[in-house]
Amino acid sequence: MDFSRRQCLLGLGGVAAGTALLSMVDKAEAQNPQAAPKRFAQMNGEFGWKPHKLDPKEVAEVAYEGYWYKGYACGYGCFYSLIGLMAEKYGAPYNTFPFSMLEANKGGISDWGTICGALYGAAAAFALFWGRDERTPMVNELYRWYEITKLPIYKPAKARGVEGEIPNNASGSVLCHISVSKWCYANQIEATSKKRNERCGRLTADVASKACEILNAKIDAGKDFKGALAKQESVKTCGTCHQTKGEEANWAKGVMDCTPCHNGSDALMNKFKDHP
Amino acid sequence: MDFSRRQCLLGLGGVAAGTALLSMVDKAEAQNPQAAPKRFAQMNGEFGWKPHKLDPKEVAEVAYEGYWYKGYACGYGCFYSLIGLMAEKYGAPYNTFPFSMLEANKGGISDWGTICGALYGAAAAFALFWGRDERTPMVNELYRWYEITKLPIYKPAKARGVEGEIPNNASGSVLCHISVSKWCYANQIEATSKKRNERCGRLTADVASKACEILNAKIDAGKDFKGALAKQESVKTCGTCHQTKGEEANWAKGVMDCTPCHNGSDALMNKFKDHP
Repeated sequence: MDFSRRQCLLGLGGVAAGTALLSMVDKAEAQNPQAAPKRFAQMNGEFGWKPHKLDPKEVAEVAYEGYWYKGYACGYGCFYSLIGLMAEKYGAPYNTFPFSMLEANKGGISDWGTICGALYGAAAAFALFWGRDERTPMVNELYRWYEITKLPIYKPAKARGVEGEIPNNASGSVLCHISVSKWCYANQIEATSKKRNERCGRLTADVASKACEILNAKIDAGKDFKGALAKQESVKTCGTCHQTKGEEANWAKGVMDCTPCHNGSDALMNKFKDHP
Repeated sequence: MDFSRRQCLLGLGGVAAGTALLSMVDKAEAQNPQAAPKRFAQMNGEFGWKPHKLDPKEVAEVAYEGYWYKGYACGYGCFYSLIGLMAEKYGAPYNTFPFSMLEANKGGISDWGTICGALYGAAAAFALFWGRDERTPMVNELYRWYEITKLPIYKPAKARGVEGEIPNNASGSVLCHISVSKWCYANQIEATSKKRNERCGRLTADVASKACEILNAKIDAGKDFKGALAKQESVKTCGTCHQTKGEEANWAKGVMDCTPCHNGSDALMNKFKDHP
């Protein structure tokens, strides 16, 4: 009986699954010959998946569909459009990922309004391939672009929420709360409306498409990858005291644009004392 | 030759890997008999992993060690302490997860200062097991606790950064920028200091331990799980206009405590016009 290890595996789940399993087993054996669990051990190695170029147009379409898929929304849509497409095209290890985990990112994580889910989905996808030093310029480029770009831009062939034009604006912030609330206020559109859903679905396509361009550029440039967008003026200025080692005021964590919050705007004033 | 499918697999990577692979293959076969990739298909099903109870004390220790492991920090430490411990104890599918992906959460995602990485790690872990409706009360409980609890509490047997007492405070916010910066300012400790690292390492242990308690309680209570902490006063009050369908001011997304930003505090005033 010609029953090699490869054939045995291939017989179980088809070519794609078989290759996936072999790859995982090979790595597991290599890292851990006794198969005894070792703390912080990781199948395929840390940041060990191989990135593949994708078509930004296809990615945008899949991200938009993913946004509406069972209402799994922005984080799922963006992440699936990158890693799910790799799973569809290349099988393992991409198809081993528990994609619905990214649904946690809806509404800035279970509706808390923190990081825009689409932006998290992209950062998480990058982090399957690249460690901190290589990944940070990619995240910086995407997040700075998001702060200053009027979104959404994407126009679906067939809208899943609301047909027609959707107003756009620059959020100034990577936070869901600021991004959504500012857009709703500017356009007097309710946050719980279908039109706001449609805005976020299209924005998910925009973020995924931009993330895909950055991914493709990174694959081409390797360690030489550099983003086009410079550090925000506010972060530069405030950072000279508040983010510089040895300065007595060095206590500001983060590189989000400072201006949406530290500007004394009417919306941020003493709402609890002076609300109209 | 007695060469069953199970034995074939077990021969490759030991008991744990073998069980993992069988489970994945079985599911893949069941969902996709031709092994042709189907959009949004997911191995083991959506939210399909089985949760296991863990010991909060062991989780805290592993989270603290994970924080320091190669500097992978808060998101990695918290997520690994939950899902990595399940991998160590139960094998698959937990051990198929690419854990270093969570390193993206360091410093509120590549140092952007958005969501506290430890809090994201916990939400992501919950999302492997439970969909939105069941998970939201768990996330609410953890995030509200984080806003009002003086952290860090955890005291490592052997500190990896700085020995001795570390000052604590209530952040009032789930955002890394506010949580860290407020602590640094209150204690006049630099954000780039080893002492701030130590604070975040211990806080990661606290968040992971609390997340584990919530996970255990959820496993016991099932659909009847309820958190102990009520919606914040500010979210209730502001939400009566700004988060209520049909209200003309219904444009606020998110359920973070409103007060850290919408309070007209000195730190938020016209820094760009009136900076001292």
